[in-house]
Amino acid sequence: MSDTLPTAGYVTGPVVDHHCHGLVLRDLDRPAFEALMNEGPGSGRWTGSPFDSMLGLAIRRHCAPLLGLEPHADADTYLGRRQALGHEEVARRMLGAADIGTLLVDTGFQPDEICSPAEVAALAGDTTRSHQVIRLETTAQDLLAEGTDPKELRTAVRQRLAESEAVAAKSIAAYRCGLDLLDGRPTDMEVAAALHRQRPADGETWRITDRTVVSALAWTAIEAGLPLQLHVGYGDSDVDLLACDPLHLTAFLRATQRYDVPVLLLHNYPFHRHAAYLAQVFDHVFMDVGLAVHNTGALSRRVIEDTLELVPFGKLLHSSDAFGLAELYYLGTALFRQGLHDVLEDLVMRDELSEADAARIGRQVAAENATRAYGLGSG
Amino acid sequence: MSDTLPTAGYVTGPVVDHHCHGLVLRDLDRPAFEALMNEGPGSGRWTGSPFDSMLGLAIRRHCAPLLGLEPHADADTYLGRRQALGHEEVARRMLGAADIGTLLVDTGFQPDEICSPAEVAALAGDTTRSHQVIRLETTAQDLLAEGTDPKELRTAVRQRLAESEAVAAKSIAAYRCGLDLLDGRPTDMEVAAALHRQRPADGETWRITDRTVVSALAWTAIEAGLPLQLHVGYGDSDVDLLACDPLHLTAFLRATQRYDVPVLLLHNYPFHRHAAYLAQVFDHVFMDVGLAVHNTGALSRRVIEDTLELVPFGKLLHSSDAFGLAELYYLGTALFRQGLHDVLEDLVMRDELSEADAARIGRQVAAENATRAYGLGSG
Amino acid sequence: MSDTLPTAGYVTGPVVDHHCHGLVLRDLDRPAFEALMNEGPGSGRWTGSPFDSMLGLAIRRHCAPLLGLEPHADADTYLGRRQALGHEEVARRMLGAADIGTLLVDTGFQPDEICSPAEVAALAGDTTRSHQVIRLETTAQDLLAEGTDPKELRTAVRQRLAESEAVAAKSIAAYRCGLDLLDGRPTDMEVAAALHRQRPADGETWRITDRTVVSALAWTAIEAGLPLQLHVGYGDSDVDLLACDPLHLTAFLRATQRYDVPVLLLHNYPFHRHAAYLAQVFDHVFMDVGLAVHNTGALSRRVIEDTLELVPFGKLLHSSDAFGLAELYYLGTALFRQGLHDVLEDLVMRDELSEADAARIGRQVAAENATRAYGLGSG
Repeated sequence: MSDTLPTAGYVTGPVVDHHCHGLVLRDLDRPAFEALMNEGPGSGRWTGSPFDSMLGLAIRRHCAPLLGLEPHADADTYLGRRQALGHEEVARRMLGAADIGTLLVDTGFQPDEICSPAEVAALAGDTTRSHQVIRLETTAQDLLAEGTDPKELRTAVRQRLAESEAVAAKSIAAYRCGLDLLDGRPTDMEVAAALHRQRPADGETWRITDRTVVSALAWTAIEAGLPLQLHVGYGDSDVDLLACDPLHLTAFLRATQRYDVPVLLLHNYPFHRHAAYLAQVFDHVFMDVGLAVHNTGALSRRVIEDTLELVPFGKLLHSSDAFGLAELYYLGTALFRQGLHDVLEDLVMRDELSEADAARIGRQVAAENATRAYGLGSG
Repeated sequence: MSDTLPTAGYVTGPVVDHHCHGLVLRDLDRPAFEALMNEGPGSGRWTGSPFDSMLGLAIRRHCAPLLGLEPHADADTYLGRRQALGHEEVARRMLGAADIGTLLVDTGFQPDEICSPAEVAALAGDTTRSHQVIRLETTAQDLLAEGTDPKELRTAVRQRLAESEAVAAKSIAAYRCGLDLLDGRPTDMEVAAALHRQRPADGETWRITDRTVVSALAWTAIEAGLPLQLHVGYGDSDVDLLACDPLHLTAFLRATQRYDVPVLLLHNYPFHRHAAYLAQVFDHVFMDVGLAVHNTGALSRRVIEDTLELVPFGKLLHSSDAFGLAELYYLGTALFRQGLHDVLEDLVMRDELSEADAARIGRQVAAENATRAYGLGSG
Repeated sequence: MSDTLPTAGYVTGPVVDHHCHGLVLRDLDRPAFEALMNEGPGSGRWTGSPFDSMLGLAIRRHCAPLLGLEPHADADTYLGRRQALGHEEVARRMLGAADIGTLLVDTGFQPDEICSPAEVAALAGDTTRSHQVIRLETTAQDLLAEGTDPKELRTAVRQRLAESEAVAAKSIAAYRCGLDLLDGRPTDMEVAAALHRQRPADGETWRITDRTVVSALAWTAIEAGLPLQLHVGYGDSDVDLLACDPLHLTAFLRATQRYDVPVLLLHNYPFHRHAAYLAQVFDHVFMDVGLAVHNTGALSRRVIEDTLELVPFGKLLHSSDAFGLAELYYLGTALFRQGLHDVLEDLVMRDELSEADAARIGRQVAAENATRAYGLGSG
């Protein structure tokens, strides 16, 4: 932990960040930095700068000292110092301060822009390990582009999952058809028929958006026994947030529970209470509040507290959902530590929780739950 | 009040618990106890123990001292002591500490597993009274099984409501067809036609799931002038929570308001702000946050505070929604007292509320509102 | 600021109230006052008095001293004193204490009951300015009643918008067809066909409820470059709140963003986190939590804090949404100042925000954002 957020005593030690992306490994000017800050369009006529947000305040308050600046340094000072140090040094400082033991890295979004899982891990520390999370829709599109027969798609995806070293599969159903996934695995003929209907025109590339196909991909991961991550809730303007309420997954979760394969609901904000309910009533459902934590900055404690109302303590995970900017790995992790610690400490102060239990819950959520869900072992 | 939660000075005196169930009157081993704790599946491969939750912490913190244990006793110590004392002694201590004046008991769920309203009242205290809440769907299914002509079902239900001593009817529309009830009473012919379509196969029993029939039953209670309780929101994995948002009731509430019969929205979490809105804009709508209070444990104050934002003070009720475990009557009641008191006290400390008003609101919510809504009298 | 809420140091100076209505300029007895208090039906058999609510507490606590009474005066004392002073003196005190620099007044609801924008401004202070917000559906209905050819409606509305001095248009799509507005401007022929289908019977008046027509009106404002206010969320029992979730606007917002015309989401409670998300991902979207602030009274800080989690600081506005009662202008404004100040001050105390930034955010939200969004100039 950085000394800028020093008091998270119940949530110490290396964390497992069970969902993040790669870093952009180049120096960034202000527009490029702002475009990567949040789910919005960067700076804008009406928005002004994305620094005028809880995330912007958090960067100026907590990241500035890691670059040797005073807390609350202004945006230009911050970005000037960032460029002077160089992106690699900044990444080493931010990821080092985050104290990350293990990273699970989604490699399916803008892979040409960002670095590999191994590169993130190397910047995070000598002992940090990384694992791949493989994206289902991208994998399927690649296979179709390579000439896979649509009737064989499911089998081919399953084989590719087996060949990969991925510890989890990820579905972006939320961006493609919404979360109302089918409560039974579609047949290969149904998949082929759906693909036929949405095959690309000559010269265009495959883009899987059909509910039958997206559902089949999610079921393929479940049947392969591979933990399934699902984007839920909060995202950019391409998402239809109403269709991303995790409650739309209810029938799918009811149908998949007998497989005992973890289904991990990512982000969830502003539906995090809904996700916590699902994690309570379905044994195989896990959740996090990644992405929301660094975006809500110093107000993120509330999001964590809302979530703890119902979530079983063994099913809450940590993720940063960081993409591109080193600051997001640090803030996502440090603010989550701090917010969870603050909630636990408040319960201890009110004598609603023992110190020993608080420390145990901190360890579970920070690392042990993810280690167990993904079978990461200790090696 | 137990001395473990001693400070709820604005919410003192015997409460009316306007919605609970019976107790399981036998000693319980750990798996049996855990299976009754919350809306989840009990212990599980990924969940571990349901004690690892806010409810589990609350049992260990607040129920343990009632059994003569230290606060925060571990689960095995707690359950061992519980078995040594015997379920009846535990029930007397828990229900006694809850200080319940009147219980309204739903007798329609797993009646073979749980004790009668009179038995709950006897365990709760010498002066505790109980009343029955009659379940509409169960009553109708019983009548059909007894050979009632589907065309006569509505009349037969109404007669059975009149013959019963129930002070309220309850609908579990949420579990059967969702809350989008019809905004006019279906005719007997429409009910008969719907029942004909869903009549059971030979050897099977009636299970009413049709929206027309469920709506007709709710309308029957309204027309009979019997307060209507509705399960809303939070429930187990059989529920489709999206269909249980109380806002789906808007058209039904608009149509029924002219009858001046109380409609009482139960639980409501995580849609409790929605329910509070309905209680503000419809005169005949009441609400509670039962079930959510003991499940969210030491974090339940937030749920109560969210609710108070809009709910008229004369339309918030207390319920535990306890089922089976004596602990849930105690925690549901004690935590609600404490949470409501804490919100009121905070307002008094900030000089936003006078002490006299705080005490008046406490009395209203704890008992007077329910007494008025159900016409319970003082006798 | 009144000395009853003296500490809002980060949110001082005259505000822009970017959405309110006129005052009822006559003395009111208790039933008449209560009927205007909130979105409910006034006093009622089950509700008792609307004074038994957070709003009622706020009036007794914060408005009573402005009438020379003790804080927490009871309702009858308050209303007696109010009548003795006379409505005009009460209005001068309340609106003066609110410290309003500029009012944007919606003139489309019950115009015979309430005073004009200029009259509100005159009561608010010597230097207070007012501007009209023109209601789209009312304008269109007026034009149709005047004999405008349905095929020409869009052109006629656009001309009337241009002729008016309104600084914004307002749509009450929420009350007419829900917020799922079309993501492209309907053609004049489509509008005419839709109007033909819903033309009034002889002797009846036009009431526009068709989604195509309501969408066309919203698009007309966008194409005219006039900022578009939309009622979202919280309203009276005529609204179907589920259809008023701002997320239903997603496709419309995606389609309109290229016009760079501000779209201003009003009220938003209990979907204010949803609105804040939209304000983050769409550059042209602004929001407020008006109406909810005075209704939730001393609990309104939470609503403001929820909102700040994601909203860009340059896109949060202040509105009272006051209608009829002078108290609502005062409370809507004073409580918003106080709540926003409290959140900012708490962040400053925790060293998560600098004092200079807190003051800047206070100024932006209180006045500068609205001045910029509506091009109000400083003159």
